[in-house]
Amino acid sequence: MTTQVQALYDFTGEPNTTEMSITCGEILTLVNTEIGEGWWEGKNAKGETGLFPAAYVRKLAPDESIQTKAAPAAPRYDQATDDWGDQQFSAGDSNFQRGTSHEDGWDDDWDDDTYSEIGPVPQKSNAQQQQQYNQQLTPLPGMPISDYNHHVEETASNYGSSVGTVRKNKFAPSSKVSGESYLLATLNVEVRDSEKVYIVQEEDRYEWWPITQPYTVTVASPKKESKFKGIKSFIAYQLTPSFNNIQVSRRYKHFDWLHERLQEKFTLIPIPPLPDKQISGRYDEQLIERRRVQLQEFVDWMCRHPVLSKCEVWQHFLTCTDEKRWKAGKRQAERDPLIGLNYCISIVVPEKALLQSQVDHITEQCHMFITSMDTSVKSVSSMCIAHTKKLQGPYKADCQKVGEAFCSLAASLSLDEGSLASTSKLTTAIKMTGSAYIDMGRMYDEHPKYDWEPLGDKFHLYKGVVGGFPDVLGTHKSAVQKKRECERLTAENKMEIAQLNEVLRRTDVVSYALVAEINHFKAERTKDLNATMQKFLRQQIHFYKKIVDKLETTLKYYDDE
Amino acid sequence: MTTQVQALYDFTGEPNTTEMSITCGEILTLVNTEIGEGWWEGKNAKGETGLFPAAYVRKLAPDESIQTKAAPAAPRYDQATDDWGDQQFSAGDSNFQRGTSHEDGWDDDWDDDTYSEIGPVPQKSNAQQQQQYNQQLTPLPGMPISDYNHHVEETASNYGSSVGTVRKNKFAPSSKVSGESYLLATLNVEVRDSEKVYIVQEEDRYEWWPITQPYTVTVASPKKESKFKGIKSFIAYQLTPSFNNIQVSRRYKHFDWLHERLQEKFTLIPIPPLPDKQISGRYDEQLIERRRVQLQEFVDWMCRHPVLSKCEVWQHFLTCTDEKRWKAGKRQAERDPLIGLNYCISIVVPEKALLQSQVDHITEQCHMFITSMDTSVKSVSSMCIAHTKKLQGPYKADCQKVGEAFCSLAASLSLDEGSLASTSKLTTAIKMTGSAYIDMGRMYDEHPKYDWEPLGDKFHLYKGVVGGFPDVLGTHKSAVQKKRECERLTAENKMEIAQLNEVLRRTDVVSYALVAEINHFKAERTKDLNATMQKFLRQQIHFYKKIVDKLETTLKYYDDE
Repeated sequence: MTTQVQALYDFTGEPNTTEMSITCGEILTLVNTEIGEGWWEGKNAKGETGLFPAAYVRKLAPDESIQTKAAPAAPRYDQATDDWGDQQFSAGDSNFQRGTSHEDGWDDDWDDDTYSEIGPVPQKSNAQQQQQYNQQLTPLPGMPISDYNHHVEETASNYGSSVGTVRKNKFAPSSKVSGESYLLATLNVEVRDSEKVYIVQEEDRYEWWPITQPYTVTVASPKKESKFKGIKSFIAYQLTPSFNNIQVSRRYKHFDWLHERLQEKFTLIPIPPLPDKQISGRYDEQLIERRRVQLQEFVDWMCRHPVLSKCEVWQHFLTCTDEKRWKAGKRQAERDPLIGLNYCISIVVPEKALLQSQVDHITEQCHMFITSMDTSVKSVSSMCIAHTKKLQGPYKADCQKVGEAFCSLAASLSLDEGSLASTSKLTTAIKMTGSAYIDMGRMYDEHPKYDWEPLGDKFHLYKGVVGGFPDVLGTHKSAVQKKRECERLTAENKMEIAQLNEVLRRTDVVSYALVAEINHFKAERTKDLNATMQKFLRQQIHFYKKIVDKLETTLKYYDDE
Repeated sequence: MTTQVQALYDFTGEPNTTEMSITCGEILTLVNTEIGEGWWEGKNAKGETGLFPAAYVRKLAPDESIQTKAAPAAPRYDQATDDWGDQQFSAGDSNFQRGTSHEDGWDDDWDDDTYSEIGPVPQKSNAQQQQQYNQQLTPLPGMPISDYNHHVEETASNYGSSVGTVRKNKFAPSSKVSGESYLLATLNVEVRDSEKVYIVQEEDRYEWWPITQPYTVTVASPKKESKFKGIKSFIAYQLTPSFNNIQVSRRYKHFDWLHERLQEKFTLIPIPPLPDKQISGRYDEQLIERRRVQLQEFVDWMCRHPVLSKCEVWQHFLTCTDEKRWKAGKRQAERDPLIGLNYCISIVVPEKALLQSQVDHITEQCHMFITSMDTSVKSVSSMCIAHTKKLQGPYKADCQKVGEAFCSLAASLSLDEGSLASTSKLTTAIKMTGSAYIDMGRMYDEHPKYDWEPLGDKFHLYKGVVGGFPDVLGTHKSAVQKKRECERLTAENKMEIAQLNEVLRRTDVVSYALVAEINHFKAERTKDLNATMQKFLRQQIHFYKKIVDKLETTLKYYDDE
């Protein structure tokens, strides 16, 4: 039996490959769904046959004729990304065979996700692997073991009548998804209870359902690992979640891949940033350590977020130790249909409809706050970097110049004292004073890692989170605009009231999510900044006390007056 | 009755004035000794009449024919210097009449000694004034009241036969005096007991006879004074010696004049320096205060020196409150014949002859030490200036940038908290943290006056004292060379043994003085640097403790974690 699919978006095939261009709305006949890697083969009306992303089309029911307009980004042909599981777990992998030998230093952490093959590399279906992954997936803390074998083409919805279906296990659309399919209720996916995210009212606030079983993840001192018998080496960070105490090894590019998935999926939740590529460090060790600290900040923020801490791709990232499951989970995450506003289908909100005026007030307030906060956190962040540089540069040098001047004075005085043995108490004391200031110079150099650098790392995180809010607000604003458009259409009798009601309900879900996230951010930053500032101040106090101690010790070398 | 004088030195009269050039050895007939200001009028062999410095000639006994070779510097025609007593004590003085109106700001402290009249301004004899001054001179502590009416032409000496005489109360020769007249015993002046300076053996060291009645002098916060009904203003420093508790008012130029006298007189004692003209200060008050502190350092050093603390010109400077006595004392000091090596005639040393090899060892040691010390004290001194500038410039600014970043963060956070009244504890705490760092910036700006500036002032003093030693060593070296020349002359039978013995004895006095001064400097700096460094360290400790306090106070604003 032939199956027909309709293109949901335009896709431009790479010329001179097996790819085929398809146009939004175009009807194609499926030829082969076993291509793998998210590709299907089909035949168009002209009789041409070629590959296109499975996620760009939907299987047609005989009477269907709905068109969607927004197009996700083209799937990424990032072979390096795709087979990083191999790089992680095996030597002599396909990368090596393809001679991608520029991955030969720890610094490739930053680079080796940038190279790509032209065109997709069709692979065998990963159905079995995927099955295996789903069965072995580590259960999340506080969540029942989920069955990830989503019922394809199942159209039952929590929110109303089925208007269309989206297949799971396809290439994921990008974060550019406008959310129309969700808002206009053309998207309906059955979401298992385990995947549902609840927003609850707590006193006068709407909040994400709080974390019931908190956990932490430590990012341990990174190790330099190598492969290809030592030809290539890279830095792997050791992550150990508190809920299972099983260490996993992750490279920066794994984090990077995760970050991309999270950003695609959560358009209403600002994702904490990864380490700054501009981290400066004179030694590899310092640089790697700074990245570790910033990764720890990222991980901590993830663990403390009620929604992010539970999400599947994150859990997969935290727990997977098997290469095959890793690859399977990776592909699954990349084909996750519940990304962008579509994710909202997982969100269960209070029955109460929101007052648009209240929502407007909250978003305006948030916009004003975030605009100001963005400037402030950037200013604290860059101040920390600049101040650290000053402490390790001129402050250190100045202190040592002071020390050297005293040392030279002591050396001169000793010239008037004959042999070394007869060095006077004063000369010794002045020499010790010189040494003390030289030591203090070293303290200026070393101490930022306890105060200014952690503060800077924290504000690097805030810079990322705060910087994510304008997009969140923008996404919400578009949803509200779409809602208003539908209200107008209904007023003009161009949309049925039943459909409008579903649009209103879904827009409310978006607004609830925004409000919950705003409240989460406020609660989180209050607790977090309080701890951060105290830790910073305690370290500053410790530093100046150490200086006082050093000077007091030095003072004792002098004769009592 | 005509009196004849013989020129002791060459003097070149200013052309087109009443001055007359005289040549060493030339015989002149005295015409008028009542010119005043140290000038006499005379007639030369050609019948020309003119003025010459009284100090450049000596009255001839009928059978005398001795010539001296070394010439003192020409007397200084510094009218401003000469009548500064007037400026000090009276308004509407002759300066005003002469229209020297560039003295119109406090800064003229540095400038107003630089203008001068062309040619001497003959004045009436100051004999009466001088008499008055001598009678009213405040007795020094630990010294009997001295009768300063020196017996002119008295040739009795403590050390041997009279070979020549030098009149007191004439224009003073400059510090360029080679000392030959002293070493070759052509100089013999009666020195009263009260003026004698003793060198004694203390354990294995030769020392200046220690101060028996120590005193201190405070240099109080300077006052801006004015004269000519406010047209001109200047800064006067208030000096109060502890031995009489009578305040005197002295301007910088008075210090400058004193310093010049001391340098002329004590070629074997490095004179502490006056304030650095390069003192930087953004405000008049700060600049004036720095000068006060450096003047206090100068004064302290003077008070602690066994020889300097007792010397006549210094005591005059410290105690004179009467204008007429001031001028008289000033002229007397300028005519002091016991300057340069001639001062050694006042020094009483142990009977024991010094071993030249020992003296050589001490001077070599001193030379090596001083060369190194010169570099060190300069380095500490310039380090203090540079470090102060950094603390008051970039360190202050950096600290304030930190504070401003925190303040801006607090301001942003408060935007999310509605009214000011509802500002959260965290926001308040962060704001207080910002303020604390801004305050710390101010502390960086203000504290150098308690640690780095006093340290710099102390090392400014050492820079001057240490910098004076090469000249002292040079003076001593010349004396030793002269001694060796005389030994050769005696070996060649060109000098009598009796005269050589006197030369040897006098050279030993010079060496004793050098050794005593080296020992004094060592003892003084050991005590002084010990106190200085401790004071500095205590202030540094105080500063860092204040920072710790401030940070600890700030920490209390935060909620307990």
